[in-house]
Amino acid sequence: MSRTNHRTKNMHSIEKNTCAILSSRPDDYPRAEHFSLLNCPLPALSEGQVRVKNRYLSIDPAMRGWVSDERNYLKPVAIGEVMRSLAVGEVAASRHPDYQVGEHITGWFGWQQVANVEAAQIIRKIHEQNHIQAPPLSSSLGVLGLNGITAYLALNSIGRPQTGETLLVSTAAGAVGSIVGQLGKLAGCRVLGLTGSDKKVEQCTQLFGYDAALNYKNYANSHDLERAIVQLAGAPASGKGLGVDIFYDNTGGTIADAAFTSLNMHARVIQCGTASIGNWNPLPQGPRKERYFITKRLMQQGFVIFDHLEKWPATVDILSELIRSDQLHYSEEIYQGLALAPQALENLYSGDNKGKSLVEVEQQD
Amino acid sequence: MSRTNHRTKNMHSIEKNTCAILSSRPDDYPRAEHFSLLNCPLPALSEGQVRVKNRYLSIDPAMRGWVSDERNYLKPVAIGEVMRSLAVGEVAASRHPDYQVGEHITGWFGWQQVANVEAAQIIRKIHEQNHIQAPPLSSSLGVLGLNGITAYLALNSIGRPQTGETLLVSTAAGAVGSIVGQLGKLAGCRVLGLTGSDKKVEQCTQLFGYDAALNYKNYANSHDLERAIVQLAGAPASGKGLGVDIFYDNTGGTIADAAFTSLNMHARVIQCGTASIGNWNPLPQGPRKERYFITKRLMQQGFVIFDHLEKWPATVDILSELIRSDQLHYSEEIYQGLALAPQALENLYSGDNKGKSLVEVEQQD
Repeated sequence: MSRTNHRTKNMHSIEKNTCAILSSRPDDYPRAEHFSLLNCPLPALSEGQVRVKNRYLSIDPAMRGWVSDERNYLKPVAIGEVMRSLAVGEVAASRHPDYQVGEHITGWFGWQQVANVEAAQIIRKIHEQNHIQAPPLSSSLGVLGLNGITAYLALNSIGRPQTGETLLVSTAAGAVGSIVGQLGKLAGCRVLGLTGSDKKVEQCTQLFGYDAALNYKNYANSHDLERAIVQLAGAPASGKGLGVDIFYDNTGGTIADAAFTSLNMHARVIQCGTASIGNWNPLPQGPRKERYFITKRLMQQGFVIFDHLEKWPATVDILSELIRSDQLHYSEEIYQGLALAPQALENLYSGDNKGKSLVEVEQQD
Repeated sequence: MSRTNHRTKNMHSIEKNTCAILSSRPDDYPRAEHFSLLNCPLPALSEGQVRVKNRYLSIDPAMRGWVSDERNYLKPVAIGEVMRSLAVGEVAASRHPDYQVGEHITGWFGWQQVANVEAAQIIRKIHEQNHIQAPPLSSSLGVLGLNGITAYLALNSIGRPQTGETLLVSTAAGAVGSIVGQLGKLAGCRVLGLTGSDKKVEQCTQLFGYDAALNYKNYANSHDLERAIVQLAGAPASGKGLGVDIFYDNTGGTIADAAFTSLNMHARVIQCGTASIGNWNPLPQGPRKERYFITKRLMQQGFVIFDHLEKWPATVDILSELIRSDQLHYSEEIYQGLALAPQALENLYSGDNKGKSLVEVEQQD
């Protein structure tokens, strides 16, 4: 809170800073070829800015939307611009009174080794590092970042899980889904998962506490998948405790369509992602849902974490405590070196990721 | 409240009672040919039953669902069964202590002149008839019945209208839509309507207080209609007070699709009907909405009035007072004679109705 003298070392332009820019716009899913690595030295720090040395970069499914020129919740990343990304790093220099050299911060620092940032780009300081048994710094981008906070707030604000209800999660072993499943169990729900490999099914039940999960790729068509989900969940009309009360959907498309038959009366559908849909222009077609809304009194609502930034710190505290008390587990896949960021993103859309995808940035000094 | 002697006259089977039965199951919209008129004398009243002489029968869009064998919120009407219908009439005989000869009651009395009913089929007694300036008996099936109560509860519980917001209503001049529009104005909203004829557009603005309305049949395709709705409402991104905050949808299908572009951030979509969709088997296709849910944080929810029977009497009081104080107007189209009930229903789906459709039952004595 008190104003201190601003540090004045490292205020000059730096010689070497590798960054990954968006070099062309993908038609559907971004691939490595849509990005280029450049040397992009930074100018001297301006008054009010902070220089952050990135330690980890976040690789997120939402990036597809950020590099698309379709209307979205954030301005599209421009061609030639450093790729927008959440990151966590260490303050290397500061001309802002609230941030001191050596502190860890997370925010919108982009796919680059070093960034000059304004205070508005900083989401929070990483206080957990001061605790004994602090989760690793990388976790502030996953379970204690975008993914965990999304899972917690969307599940609770839209899903409102009650003991004895059934929660179905798509991308069940993913960075968000794996947290949703565990939070559902902690809320007393039966938790079922849809995921894209037999290995992930195993992760769901053995690591993330799902009661059961299925690999949607094992079904030839939407009808077979629909039958499999009904078999997994029980048909809604068959009795109490069967069917699905909350559907946490990260995929949309035909995978989600197949789940609607299993929804119970007064079910809640949380639309948190649309990972299975490659292209929205022109609008893809799918089965109409209007009648489900009426006959089942469905409620479906979209969720974007950036509407809820004010709840971020309190939610980090809740999730940190669950991790410390061993009630919440998470899995990270860490790529070594900024140069792998584009490939890590491509892998995310092919479903090859295992848990939260991150890039560890090499130290340049 | 006090127990009185049961009336004992008219306890016997009656000679003549015309009823309209479902004689075949429609593939899509019910037409007059799907019903037959029969003479179906009633048995003697059993203990606990009430005999009601129907005065008005209700003709409702929801009847399409009731005569379909698709899963729905009520059991399908069987072939050969008297058509399910809300009705209002006078107690002609009673073997139930709570109902006395001469009282007016509304409930599930079917398309017939006279019905023997159990207490569970009776929704309420019409107390308004005791007031000075009482609305006519027929209104208990429309503005003070299914339609008005649906409009009031769905708009307020799901739409939550705020002063200065914009409300868009489909079937804007219909029995439900016309009430929704007026309630929206009373809540301080700008109110816009979609309707199916130029005459109904005129009704919307001159009788029901809409700020503006359009005839969706004047547009060659969904894109033209979409552009027209954007022009009517203002594009969501263009500034405060533009775009649509609440969409009260009674049609679904392509008419509703065309409205989604105009929806604002955090808009609420009330799914109250699907009048524009003829057949749900196989599921018709339409543009996917998943991305709208996320980018606009949409909330869409289905509403069926029969979940809310406990709120019926209090809502009747609120709406009655609005009628008495000339703040709520309604329009009824009354067909003369039970024999016209099937044709009245067919006309409803062709969009030829003007306000609430009713049948006045001829008196048989």
